[in-house]
Amino acid sequence: MATAPKPLTRADAEKLDKADPLAHTRALFQLPDGVIYLDGNSLGALPAAVPARMAHAIEHEWGVGLIRSWNDADWYPAPQRVGNRIAKLIGANDGEVICADSTGVNLFKVLVAALRMRPGRKRIVGERGNFPTDVYIASGVAELMGAELAAVEPDDVLAAIDQNTAIVSLTHVNYKTGRVYDMAGITQRAHEVGALVVWDLCHTAGAMPCDLNGCNADFAVGCGYKYLNGGPGAPAFVFVAKRHQDAVRQPITGWHGHLRPFEFTHEYEAGAGIDRMLVGTASQLGLISLEAALEAFDGVELAALRRKSQALTGLFIELADQELSGFGLASPRDAAQRGSQVSLITHDDGYAIMQALISRGVIGDYRAPDILRFGFAPLYVRYVDVWDAIATIKDVMATAAWNTPEFLTRKAVT
Amino acid sequence: MATAPKPLTRADAEKLDKADPLAHTRALFQLPDGVIYLDGNSLGALPAAVPARMAHAIEHEWGVGLIRSWNDADWYPAPQRVGNRIAKLIGANDGEVICADSTGVNLFKVLVAALRMRPGRKRIVGERGNFPTDVYIASGVAELMGAELAAVEPDDVLAAIDQNTAIVSLTHVNYKTGRVYDMAGITQRAHEVGALVVWDLCHTAGAMPCDLNGCNADFAVGCGYKYLNGGPGAPAFVFVAKRHQDAVRQPITGWHGHLRPFEFTHEYEAGAGIDRMLVGTASQLGLISLEAALEAFDGVELAALRRKSQALTGLFIELADQELSGFGLASPRDAAQRGSQVSLITHDDGYAIMQALISRGVIGDYRAPDILRFGFAPLYVRYVDVWDAIATIKDVMATAAWNTPEFLTRKAVT
Repeated sequence: MATAPKPLTRADAEKLDKADPLAHTRALFQLPDGVIYLDGNSLGALPAAVPARMAHAIEHEWGVGLIRSWNDADWYPAPQRVGNRIAKLIGANDGEVICADSTGVNLFKVLVAALRMRPGRKRIVGERGNFPTDVYIASGVAELMGAELAAVEPDDVLAAIDQNTAIVSLTHVNYKTGRVYDMAGITQRAHEVGALVVWDLCHTAGAMPCDLNGCNADFAVGCGYKYLNGGPGAPAFVFVAKRHQDAVRQPITGWHGHLRPFEFTHEYEAGAGIDRMLVGTASQLGLISLEAALEAFDGVELAALRRKSQALTGLFIELADQELSGFGLASPRDAAQRGSQVSLITHDDGYAIMQALISRGVIGDYRAPDILRFGFAPLYVRYVDVWDAIATIKDVMATAAWNTPEFLTRKAVT
Repeated sequence: MATAPKPLTRADAEKLDKADPLAHTRALFQLPDGVIYLDGNSLGALPAAVPARMAHAIEHEWGVGLIRSWNDADWYPAPQRVGNRIAKLIGANDGEVICADSTGVNLFKVLVAALRMRPGRKRIVGERGNFPTDVYIASGVAELMGAELAAVEPDDVLAAIDQNTAIVSLTHVNYKTGRVYDMAGITQRAHEVGALVVWDLCHTAGAMPCDLNGCNADFAVGCGYKYLNGGPGAPAFVFVAKRHQDAVRQPITGWHGHLRPFEFTHEYEAGAGIDRMLVGTASQLGLISLEAALEAFDGVELAALRRKSQALTGLFIELADQELSGFGLASPRDAAQRGSQVSLITHDDGYAIMQALISRGVIGDYRAPDILRFGFAPLYVRYVDVWDAIATIKDVMATAAWNTPEFLTRKAVT
């Protein structure tokens, strides 16, 4: 006769923290008292190394070094240097990733470049529920280039890839549900019909490993301010597989993408390798912050990062089952198919519920129309945070603490 | 009988500083000891307000406020707010300027948008000696859109504007010579034939006033890290005249340019007014630095700024005539045609000369193949700096101090 499983307790969460091989990395972040931060998938927490590094960059490199710092403080090669650091987190090699611009601008460059590599093909296959900027940018590129965007449901992606497909452009981990695409399988299918693949790694990089080169991926883009913790509006990154770099012609042909920018020649000549993805002067303060932030990943085994991420999200789901009622689950129960977030489905007043949670120090976010989204950055979120977050959600719902004019009338911005 | 004019002395420069109505603004900058900084046209000096503002933004707004700061610290409206500050410096109104991306990316957006407003016309008229990124971006847009770039000499611009011209795209102040275009006359000529005008204000904004709306200009772009002192790689800005804003369709259709970005709808709808020029999440750390930097312009009368700029560059030319030999002058002698810089023509070893000057604390820059460029930021450059810089150049040339392996073998980067 089977006994019912014993309910989980806070002590179980404490035990998991004691055994956590990544417990030490939390000290690499400055986290405010009284806050359980489950929104690192929107803006990563402040790495403890950043304030001093930025003060030095501002007061010494800029203030004293002035223009000389482009050479003397190694500002000039920062986009490549930071790109190489990110490459290690996403299965890319040195010289395949560069930091520049925003995710949207990089996606634009890559989609136009990829369409140019597949003349005669006009279809971009995407996901209807992809993050809006991915859909908007792809629509804009399609309009500009006389192509078309076929935005389909996740389960229909494989079938939509055919001989007319120029590009398959997907976000590896969906921003709303946390569902993970099969990068290897989709890339393979695209290549079978001669299409190219662009992966958006905004919710992947720093949260879970991926293997761009192992999957033979063509292009990727991603963001510096979520799980990479680069700070608000940190520069984004772009990956171009080595085998494509000589052929890539991206359309925003600025001087930092030139082969010899400081010769000030009249004719544009695309830079060597990944450098040609650059446009203008690097957002240096943002790069310096991001570079310092990435030190938090030094010595972190990505498999361990993934194990902890799956354990945190798994515990959250288990505790939601045990403690909460009235929510749906928008994220996969299968850990292999789940990124580092859990999304609960609620109702139209989800924004007010999230405001009530935030007022009690549990910070997640709301995504219209009915999603409460909780991100679990494995470098600084603890198992007890999961327990305490669930306890707070339970109490807010039990007391209807969200159902007040204060929370109902606040306007959603982020 | 006329007496020969008395040579100028350092005491004359000191007198000019004593009478300078902008003398007080130098204290708003942190300038290193032993440096005469004549490269604010490449990277502006550090405004004294920036370090504390940035420390607060990093440690408090990011570190403690976390994602909440998009609302609570007013991060979200920063591109518009900083844009409105810049608008006052360039003759634009509130709601006509927004801060985003780099100059090159903004120029790309604006050129594509302007070509779309002139279907049937295929010519972009530009200047052959324009800053390379302007030429490269325009060439890239021309290739993408099936248009053509006609890059002509400055004196041939007016004649090149005809009924086939879609866009006239010029930099108001040439980066190499400091020559100023007649913004009103060229804009008027373009409009007479139905063309649109794009002004690059990289070497204008913060150095001298211009009157975009008084000239009836259509579009403008410019940079935040030169005379605006926003820091290395500060966000750029873009101006769209109010009358065009509803019609403008820029091609990089990211979510921050959407009318309701946080509704996460599937269809792109261009944002209201200037907001549609945005793409992705703002480079917030860069914006905060730039916003603090712009406070140095508070209460500064732009006519006084221009008078001082002309007096500084005029004094430099006068002293170069009096004290130096062997240099040509690449900048206009007529102050009305001169921006805030003076460029001396030397020979192929100009880079070594500049390195020797920098080693003695006089920081200008070199532009291939033979230009020594000196920028005079009126908010922090003094008349005695002009005297002392000339004295140093004189000595470096008299002693051939540049002609050593140390300086001859350094590689030019910036």
